[in-house]
Amino acid sequence: MNLVQPRILSGFTELLPEDQIVFNQMLEIIRTTYESFGFLPLDTPVIELSEILLAKAGGETEKQIYRFQKGDNDLSLRFDQTVPLARYTAQHAADLTFPFKRYQMGKVFRGERPQKGRFREFYQCDIDVIGQEQLSLYYDAEMPAVIHQIFEAFDRMFGVGGHEIRINNRKVLGGFFESLHLKEKMGDILRAIDKLEKIGGEKVREELAAAGVSAEDMDRIFEFLLLSGSNEEKLQKLAALSVESDLYKEGVQDLLTVIGAMRALGVPEDCFTLDLTIARGLDYYTGTVYETRLREHPEFGSVCGGGRYDDLASHYTREKLPGNGISIGLTRLFMQLKEAGIVTAKRRTLLQVLVLPMGEEQMTAALSAARRFREKGLIADVYYEPKGMKQKMKYAARIQVPFVCLIGEEEEKQGKVMLRDMESGIQELAEIEESIRIIEEKKI
Amino acid sequence: MNLVQPRILSGFTELLPEDQIVFNQMLEIIRTTYESFGFLPLDTPVIELSEILLAKAGGETEKQIYRFQKGDNDLSLRFDQTVPLARYTAQHAADLTFPFKRYQMGKVFRGERPQKGRFREFYQCDIDVIGQEQLSLYYDAEMPAVIHQIFEAFDRMFGVGGHEIRINNRKVLGGFFESLHLKEKMGDILRAIDKLEKIGGEKVREELAAAGVSAEDMDRIFEFLLLSGSNEEKLQKLAALSVESDLYKEGVQDLLTVIGAMRALGVPEDCFTLDLTIARGLDYYTGTVYETRLREHPEFGSVCGGGRYDDLASHYTREKLPGNGISIGLTRLFMQLKEAGIVTAKRRTLLQVLVLPMGEEQMTAALSAARRFREKGLIADVYYEPKGMKQKMKYAARIQVPFVCLIGEEEEKQGKVMLRDMESGIQELAEIEESIRIIEEKKI
Repeated sequence: MNLVQPRILSGFTELLPEDQIVFNQMLEIIRTTYESFGFLPLDTPVIELSEILLAKAGGETEKQIYRFQKGDNDLSLRFDQTVPLARYTAQHAADLTFPFKRYQMGKVFRGERPQKGRFREFYQCDIDVIGQEQLSLYYDAEMPAVIHQIFEAFDRMFGVGGHEIRINNRKVLGGFFESLHLKEKMGDILRAIDKLEKIGGEKVREELAAAGVSAEDMDRIFEFLLLSGSNEEKLQKLAALSVESDLYKEGVQDLLTVIGAMRALGVPEDCFTLDLTIARGLDYYTGTVYETRLREHPEFGSVCGGGRYDDLASHYTREKLPGNGISIGLTRLFMQLKEAGIVTAKRRTLLQVLVLPMGEEQMTAALSAARRFREKGLIADVYYEPKGMKQKMKYAARIQVPFVCLIGEEEEKQGKVMLRDMESGIQELAEIEESIRIIEEKKI
Repeated sequence: MNLVQPRILSGFTELLPEDQIVFNQMLEIIRTTYESFGFLPLDTPVIELSEILLAKAGGETEKQIYRFQKGDNDLSLRFDQTVPLARYTAQHAADLTFPFKRYQMGKVFRGERPQKGRFREFYQCDIDVIGQEQLSLYYDAEMPAVIHQIFEAFDRMFGVGGHEIRINNRKVLGGFFESLHLKEKMGDILRAIDKLEKIGGEKVREELAAAGVSAEDMDRIFEFLLLSGSNEEKLQKLAALSVESDLYKEGVQDLLTVIGAMRALGVPEDCFTLDLTIARGLDYYTGTVYETRLREHPEFGSVCGGGRYDDLASHYTREKLPGNGISIGLTRLFMQLKEAGIVTAKRRTLLQVLVLPMGEEQMTAALSAARRFREKGLIADVYYEPKGMKQKMKYAARIQVPFVCLIGEEEEKQGKVMLRDMESGIQELAEIEESIRIIEEKKI
């Protein structure tokens, strides 16, 4: 028979089990944090009608979509989880309770040209809260509290280093530009500003000049954008600025409320920064916006972003559904952390204890021992293959299991086991109950 | 703007949050059980090269596949998790430790004609253990132990009723037919036998006659297949039968070992049945095979099946990789349980406590309270919307949250909260620490 060479497509990922264990730990931290704030699980189909998924998409996104015909249906794979959320919320509005808080952690698909750090199939971990007609501003403070809790947990677990949540408000930006009578150029200006970090101030100035912004206005813009000081000082400066715009004043008031609430929710002062250069795209966001970076790894770019939007599902319903949401691109983040050597695989097994029968005769005793370990909630297995003791121990060492439980003729006769701590090499004859206690105490 | 009607494709599913909570609980039971036996997590791409996925497929399966072109690539969505496992194991063999035990719980895709109980996108929850060249027979006993633990947990949690694991061995079947010199007709016979439950004995006899089986052989076949008695009695009868076939004898010996080990692993006698009519398809399985049904709901069909196979990945590698695996089709099972009213949604929230500030002035106190609840591991949130108290309580009742934590002027002054048990209606003024204790004691 001719063999097919086993391989996966470029831009796609799969992990070895030892890495998958770590990836799942990160997924679990995100999930439990999302849940602890009351977000509900959701799981929409991977395949949807193109008519639905592309109601809003266009340009670059549309080109990337995996789209195909099956029977009479024009189908697409989801390219994000926001469009499916919009469709879902519009479709099931009558059965949902608003404010509707949901999380979804699943794969999305984008047929981009493969390049470093870009994936065609990757995990997004999203939360959104959706209101009917209105949505309290306090949710805008909850998002950073969620982000903080997740990255603090990542730091405790993997030492990813500190994080910095950068926060801004689109009304402040919009109002400021309105006051300069640059409202119709705001789009170009915000797009240029969005590139500040990537291309630098000089290039941005060139782009602004090309957009017809006067040198004088440019100075005011830069002075405004590069506001310095602590968060409190920046807030005070913004409040003191004489900007003739109600939108601006509303935005500043929003920032005051949101940042105050963030403090009450326990986000430490040194974990967030009011940063007026954060704009995040153009059309979608209408109020508070966030980006997050790792202090020690700014080169990773934003590891979690999002913000407030006025209307989620205008393509599917006339009901106004304002919301706020954030997203973590976990596949990309994990790969970056792995490459930087921050996240490393610890063990090739989830087992806490591996039972090794000396010979076939001890198999029944070994099976019972494994059963008793599992009954107490331990992760346990038996090495069944009829190999020599040396090979059995080699297997145990290779998978990095913390304990082995040896059962030979003597142990079986005494109704005990020989429990060996693989790290220290210490072993002792013990009853199963005693072994369970020892393993539990090690807290693996 | 013209609206697009929000909908999903027929054959696809999505759940309301209250149902998704239950679905996820089932997923979690399966996952923790798989892990407790030392199976490692794996997550292969949803999209693979058609050349890879279709190396083995054919006939019906191939027609169902979601297959499409993107750029130069001929792509397919996975239709099961076994073919990706075969490809993965062959590809990464050098980096894996054998026996390699993995679980994968993900969506698979089959473009079947939509009909009741058939889904085009559904969850499969699989475990497999793969050996190099050889794989101990004791793994064949581990699979039923895993199945038992999962369905026992389902029963504790949802009252799904008892389960019955039906076990057989393909060698026993094969050897028996070999002894009747019906080996070349075994395929037809097994296929007919596989339909015994669906179409009944008469129809099967007709099919066997059409396949050229004599009436005399048919009687022997039926006598053999419908062997009666306890598991132990059946085993003894099988061992006593004078069947001239080494394969048969090997199969009976296997059954003795496997059933003995199942007992040592704690599978109760009344939860499994040696059933010679279980054959499970034709080519794939070579030894022990399993099917599982719910005692009170045989009409659900098999809710978990699998078995032993000789060679996993012959299309991708010349290395011989024998294995054993089982699969739970969770989407189908969940929908059946839901429809039968066995699994019902309990709550519209994961929240343990909802904090309700009486007015805007208590918002900071409310945010702090929620933070303190969460710091102790509780699932807590604040109702932020500026509504009246009556509407706030209505919301709490609607989402079925077990506790609300009211904070008014008086409570804030005293540094306490009014904790209300929504079930009993009892409320008391308490410190946050005391509230945490009360909520924890309720064990939601």
